[in-house]
Amino acid sequence: MNHDQVYKNLTIANNTKLALVVLDGVGDIATESTGFHTPLEMARTPNLDYLAKRSAMGRLIPVAPGITPGSGPGHLALFGYDPLEVEVGRGVIEALGLGLELKAGDVAARANFCTLDAQGIVTDRRAGRIDTSICEKQVALLQKKVKKIGDVQVIIKAGKGHRFVVVFRGPGLAGPLTNTDPGREGLPIAVATGHAKTAKVVAEFQQRALPILKDCQPANGFLLRGIAHQPAIESFHDRYGLKAACIAIYPMYKGLAQLVGMTKIEVAHSLAEEFTMAVEALKTYDFVFVHVKPTDAAGEDGNFEAKVAAIEEADAALALLIAAKPDVLVVTGDHSTPVPVKGHSWHPQPVMITSEISGWDGLERFTERAGNLGSIGVMPAKYLLRLMQAHARRLDKFGA
Amino acid sequence: MNHDQVYKNLTIANNTKLALVVLDGVGDIATESTGFHTPLEMARTPNLDYLAKRSAMGRLIPVAPGITPGSGPGHLALFGYDPLEVEVGRGVIEALGLGLELKAGDVAARANFCTLDAQGIVTDRRAGRIDTSICEKQVALLQKKVKKIGDVQVIIKAGKGHRFVVVFRGPGLAGPLTNTDPGREGLPIAVATGHAKTAKVVAEFQQRALPILKDCQPANGFLLRGIAHQPAIESFHDRYGLKAACIAIYPMYKGLAQLVGMTKIEVAHSLAEEFTMAVEALKTYDFVFVHVKPTDAAGEDGNFEAKVAAIEEADAALALLIAAKPDVLVVTGDHSTPVPVKGHSWHPQPVMITSEISGWDGLERFTERAGNLGSIGVMPAKYLLRLMQAHARRLDKFGA
Repeated sequence: MNHDQVYKNLTIANNTKLALVVLDGVGDIATESTGFHTPLEMARTPNLDYLAKRSAMGRLIPVAPGITPGSGPGHLALFGYDPLEVEVGRGVIEALGLGLELKAGDVAARANFCTLDAQGIVTDRRAGRIDTSICEKQVALLQKKVKKIGDVQVIIKAGKGHRFVVVFRGPGLAGPLTNTDPGREGLPIAVATGHAKTAKVVAEFQQRALPILKDCQPANGFLLRGIAHQPAIESFHDRYGLKAACIAIYPMYKGLAQLVGMTKIEVAHSLAEEFTMAVEALKTYDFVFVHVKPTDAAGEDGNFEAKVAAIEEADAALALLIAAKPDVLVVTGDHSTPVPVKGHSWHPQPVMITSEISGWDGLERFTERAGNLGSIGVMPAKYLLRLMQAHARRLDKFGA
Repeated sequence: MNHDQVYKNLTIANNTKLALVVLDGVGDIATESTGFHTPLEMARTPNLDYLAKRSAMGRLIPVAPGITPGSGPGHLALFGYDPLEVEVGRGVIEALGLGLELKAGDVAARANFCTLDAQGIVTDRRAGRIDTSICEKQVALLQKKVKKIGDVQVIIKAGKGHRFVVVFRGPGLAGPLTNTDPGREGLPIAVATGHAKTAKVVAEFQQRALPILKDCQPANGFLLRGIAHQPAIESFHDRYGLKAACIAIYPMYKGLAQLVGMTKIEVAHSLAEEFTMAVEALKTYDFVFVHVKPTDAAGEDGNFEAKVAAIEEADAALALLIAAKPDVLVVTGDHSTPVPVKGHSWHPQPVMITSEISGWDGLERFTERAGNLGSIGVMPAKYLLRLMQAHARRLDKFGA
């Protein structure tokens, strides 16, 4: 029998509260350049230590051995979906993150203003990183003048800086299409290819929109990337019987959570606020996902000290959530972003589950090397949600 | 290629002897309520310690992450079958355990006498837990009066106390059917639904059998549960080339072993006797499965001390089997039954394989936390038999 169906048949409801804290890219590696220690090992983390002493630990393989995930697959796996089966285009994620409510069949693209010379050659792929206010003004202009292309509605929404999103809504569209972003300066805007009708709509959109920007300097052009349609994904609630909320600052993560049907709770810009809202959300939701970004940013920068600091800041903020005593509390990452790699990697991220029935693996701290010694083993991330269900006693016995 | 086929192609014969000792539900968790120790950690186990110092250790995931197995799936996985592919109804297991030889297509039901009031309402689902002798008398009465329903033969056999089994044998039957047991007192007997012909046969069986019991107090009715047909399972011998025997006291485990074609060796009620018989059986069989029940019962009762005692008793009995020096000796559980959970759970059970080529993982004792550190890792239970074949040098090299 299909495994998802087996789990679904066993899923039962109760009043337990579950919290999933994702320290983005928290996993790291101990190399000579880092004194053979990882940021988690060097950080002072009294709250993570407290959890470690009452938890089951392990490591999560984000997608499959050796595969480095983007944020999309990384989070989808944590949400319990097979990231090799459910592929989500970047355009879709960005659109959701900006608060656009996508409908089945919508095709979305990440867009960004660029600078074109008189010959139509891209001279700055980010248009000098214009202000958000300019972006908003130009997007309003585009939206006013281009509302429909044939039977396809065009929805344009500004993001931050030079970024915006374009959604095409109409019959018979499908992604993915190739990017119109040529990938580097000195080339003309590329032609998006793929699904015939959608490619035609995208091409016509460019033909109509580009002249409108003719006199807008420096943002007199735009590039489209990640042109994709919204996939059909079983909702988190249908899948687990959990009413779920998402607490994140960055659009991408809000978008991913909304894609599976979590309710987005708006927060400003501090970790403390995120965790305060998480505690509040646990009163009305069964499941709360809290996304912590700075760990990943520090890893991307290759900045060991900054990653240590980000972990310590997250640790401090975590105290509030621990005090709220959710029935199941998980701390993990969506992947590793090792300082020596300066980017995402495939190294399994550490994971820790604390519940009344997690038991204690005898490990004192939440680190990568402690995770290697835990009872969860080195396990595909897509099973984490199943373990959370089990710890919440939300999975019935299988067979007599 | 299909994995099972790969293993089968590699399977070779030799004269090695293999023993699988299942301490039912032995796995546990270390929580604050247990002083952060498990029964295996607190038990004095000189014989298990002896094996630990010459074994490969690990932990077994009974079915899949987070899934708590019943005894059926738990044992089928230990026997090397994928428990998500081979589902066995409880009626089938009980029938086999009582020594009934099922044929393909047979539908079996667990039955138990109950007490009905004048309106046909169930007032005691276990008929006051009548003596086995009364059960046997009433079953003989039923069997004498109901032998056939149309073209379907009815086979009824008494179990212990109020329990018995009904097997329907005839063309075109299939399970599973819903229970006629309403699940609680104060309700009438329910109607079994599912496969049309089988449901009709079951209904007619009740119409004919219930009047026969009219004057039998307190067991004037009966309820059917786990109505299922015997699944087609490749035999243990065909699968591994091993002539296998089963040594267990409880019917369910004998039934499971017979389902895969093991020979049942009857024993009375002591662990010592079970292990004496195991040593004897190793002389004529290639593979002996020994089932030890008290560990599970203590876990179900949430009795830490009883579980420690059960482990120590099993440890003592194990000395005989160790002295017999089987080529491969495995000690594990079919799942965990943690004291704090008071029931089966999904927590991986510890496993230990001792053979001339098991090597030693450097671990001193057989415990859950030692298992986390072993060379077997945290592995699906269905692969255990394959490892046993390998340790017995019964699997050839794959590829040149």
